[in-house]
Amino acid sequence: MGGTPPLSPLAPAAFPDLPVIDGVEFATAQAGVKYKGRTDVLLVRLAEGTSMAGVFTRSATRSAPVLDCQAKIGSDGTGPAAIVVNSGNSNAFTGKNGIASTRAVTGAAARVLGIDEGRVFSSSTGVIGEPLPHERIVDKMEEMKAALSPDGIAAAARAIMTTDTYPKGASAEVRIDGQTVKIAGIAKGSGMIAPDMATMLVYIFTDALIDRNVLQSMVSATSDLTFNCITVDSDTSTSDTLLCAATGASGVRVTDKHTGFIDALHGVMLDLAHQVVRDGEGATKFVQIQVTGAASDADAKTHAMSIANSPLVKTAIAGEDANWGRIVMAVGKSGAAADRDRLSIWFGEELVADHGWRAPGYSEEACAAHMKGESIDIRVDLGLGGGTATVWTCDLTHGYISINADYRS
Amino acid sequence: MGGTPPLSPLAPAAFPDLPVIDGVEFATAQAGVKYKGRTDVLLVRLAEGTSMAGVFTRSATRSAPVLDCQAKIGSDGTGPAAIVVNSGNSNAFTGKNGIASTRAVTGAAARVLGIDEGRVFSSSTGVIGEPLPHERIVDKMEEMKAALSPDGIAAAARAIMTTDTYPKGASAEVRIDGQTVKIAGIAKGSGMIAPDMATMLVYIFTDALIDRNVLQSMVSATSDLTFNCITVDSDTSTSDTLLCAATGASGVRVTDKHTGFIDALHGVMLDLAHQVVRDGEGATKFVQIQVTGAASDADAKTHAMSIANSPLVKTAIAGEDANWGRIVMAVGKSGAAADRDRLSIWFGEELVADHGWRAPGYSEEACAAHMKGESIDIRVDLGLGGGTATVWTCDLTHGYISINADYRS
Repeated sequence: MGGTPPLSPLAPAAFPDLPVIDGVEFATAQAGVKYKGRTDVLLVRLAEGTSMAGVFTRSATRSAPVLDCQAKIGSDGTGPAAIVVNSGNSNAFTGKNGIASTRAVTGAAARVLGIDEGRVFSSSTGVIGEPLPHERIVDKMEEMKAALSPDGIAAAARAIMTTDTYPKGASAEVRIDGQTVKIAGIAKGSGMIAPDMATMLVYIFTDALIDRNVLQSMVSATSDLTFNCITVDSDTSTSDTLLCAATGASGVRVTDKHTGFIDALHGVMLDLAHQVVRDGEGATKFVQIQVTGAASDADAKTHAMSIANSPLVKTAIAGEDANWGRIVMAVGKSGAAADRDRLSIWFGEELVADHGWRAPGYSEEACAAHMKGESIDIRVDLGLGGGTATVWTCDLTHGYISINADYRS
Repeated sequence: MGGTPPLSPLAPAAFPDLPVIDGVEFATAQAGVKYKGRTDVLLVRLAEGTSMAGVFTRSATRSAPVLDCQAKIGSDGTGPAAIVVNSGNSNAFTGKNGIASTRAVTGAAARVLGIDEGRVFSSSTGVIGEPLPHERIVDKMEEMKAALSPDGIAAAARAIMTTDTYPKGASAEVRIDGQTVKIAGIAKGSGMIAPDMATMLVYIFTDALIDRNVLQSMVSATSDLTFNCITVDSDTSTSDTLLCAATGASGVRVTDKHTGFIDALHGVMLDLAHQVVRDGEGATKFVQIQVTGAASDADAKTHAMSIANSPLVKTAIAGEDANWGRIVMAVGKSGAAADRDRLSIWFGEELVADHGWRAPGYSEEACAAHMKGESIDIRVDLGLGGGTATVWTCDLTHGYISINADYRS
């Protein structure tokens, strides 16, 4: 790469203090898969009794590790498990050799840790179309086993970074029947986008005791409201992976009736999703787009994503221009139901377009002041029904072009 | 506006020499709708016997003139007709007042020219959500009537520009049964995109004698292969309009059997469509994307548009980077059928990815040389069936950000 982008202006002040999750241990190493002088491999060991759930990219050209995870995630095993992640090479579009490389890595972890290979999940992120030098990862397995520690989650968040400008973590604690259950998660990604088509990876750990099917449905539903509601530039990666491990080490059983746990899981996932958007390439504004009054929730999300992915809307926000005409355009092109004469638009608290017409006498000053802020709130009401959706994105700036066009791979 | 973008580096050397089309007269005026010191209104008078056909934006928030044109275009009238176009204000998202403004303009043209208002078609392009000062256009109608001339097409192409960096025109002549039929067309648009959400407008004139239904089906089919196959940034305007007028003044009857005429019409429309892409905001490369071997033509177009609209693909091209991994990503996310292990990709003549794997020993030098050129050819073969599509786009550069974010409206 020709250079490293500077720290996102939307970065949090520091990596959060994450709790230890009983039953989860971490180790990282410098395998030199592509990067030099930094950690690039992560090993996670999960105690016996762990339930695993996962959500993966729907790309038709998804990577070998994603295909391997998908084949394994539905099994009912609850023996010890492991996760191996490398950065620098995504092992995507690597044909049969890619599958062999994935098996070499998961097989080595299984042997070294003495666990079933069907319980070893792997992810790879970074450049695509290059053979994965899997032996460099395999060679570090014993070293990482010896270094496993419950305290390693902050180091883990750093080892999985590619073009991220900061590591991403979030946590929550929930009281259930007088006992405490903990959730901690890490993520990587500069939106769905990066110079080498690096990707989004998310790992969430909890000591709650949860049946696999219950965990999977919780994670899938929550993912639809969090990670599936963010976009930087509409480019979906070949490697997107979210894995959630419930070790059960707290002994506290959680079912789909425990709304407090589901709310906490949602909070952790939403926090991580927002951190990914805040590290969007070139981002200078964090943007929330809320659509109400749509004919259905699905229509609301179609409109919201059409607005969030519109280059004209995103450049207007970068220019601090309350250009609601571009919102009208994005609603009009989305394909979902809309009626021009029922459409209303707010920037922050300011109603700028009211039922198909420029709102009479809206305060341009109030609008301009809102656009100068770091967080932009856009609300669109379609006046058609009860459908709602909220999505998050960032602006489109010269920084995005610099990262993706000026720096040559 | 904070500034005017410089002439596109992809602009043609000069405006072409367009033939006079019998039965068509043009006049332009400086009405001061928004711009000062330039023409911004166009009046076209079409002789008795003219057949009209049109293609319009499918936006759910389309403008008042588009709705008015759509209501009129299907009628069977063949009396004299007229087209009125203004730049600087799109009369979109202007509610009931917008419809009244459109009627004021078309009504004035009908009165002044003594023709049926149902045969007066209007277009407006420019800023949206602002009331159209229609009286400024109405006030120029007599002056324009007096100035009508068969020679005014080059001036017409200039009057309809908004953020275009050059006027766009194309023509063809066809021999039918020993007689000559002429086609001439003009267009405006910097892609589908512009600072004030200006839009694409196209007007095509021929002296062929063609039934309205035949003309409409020719124009619709050809539009699907030309204007509907270009994109600058996936943002579809609220005002896109294509009108085609066949005056019949040559006396040469054309039917759907005259493939020579259809080919010529296709050539004119494709030339204008390419000129629009070459004036795409910030464009430095003209890009052709050809998809073959898809399960269907529709699938091929979905893949081609997914590639053409991918910010990662477009920034890679701007950076002269033969980043075929981003092509794989765009195919994978498109939603249309694809099989990673049958996918092959060419940049220019160079096969870079062969059946799901980096092509062994492809020439990086040949690839790099191709990427440095002004015209980039990308071909993707899916290896699944006989579906094909070709689309055209431009790269995504700092110029795009500057035009849409740095220059404030």
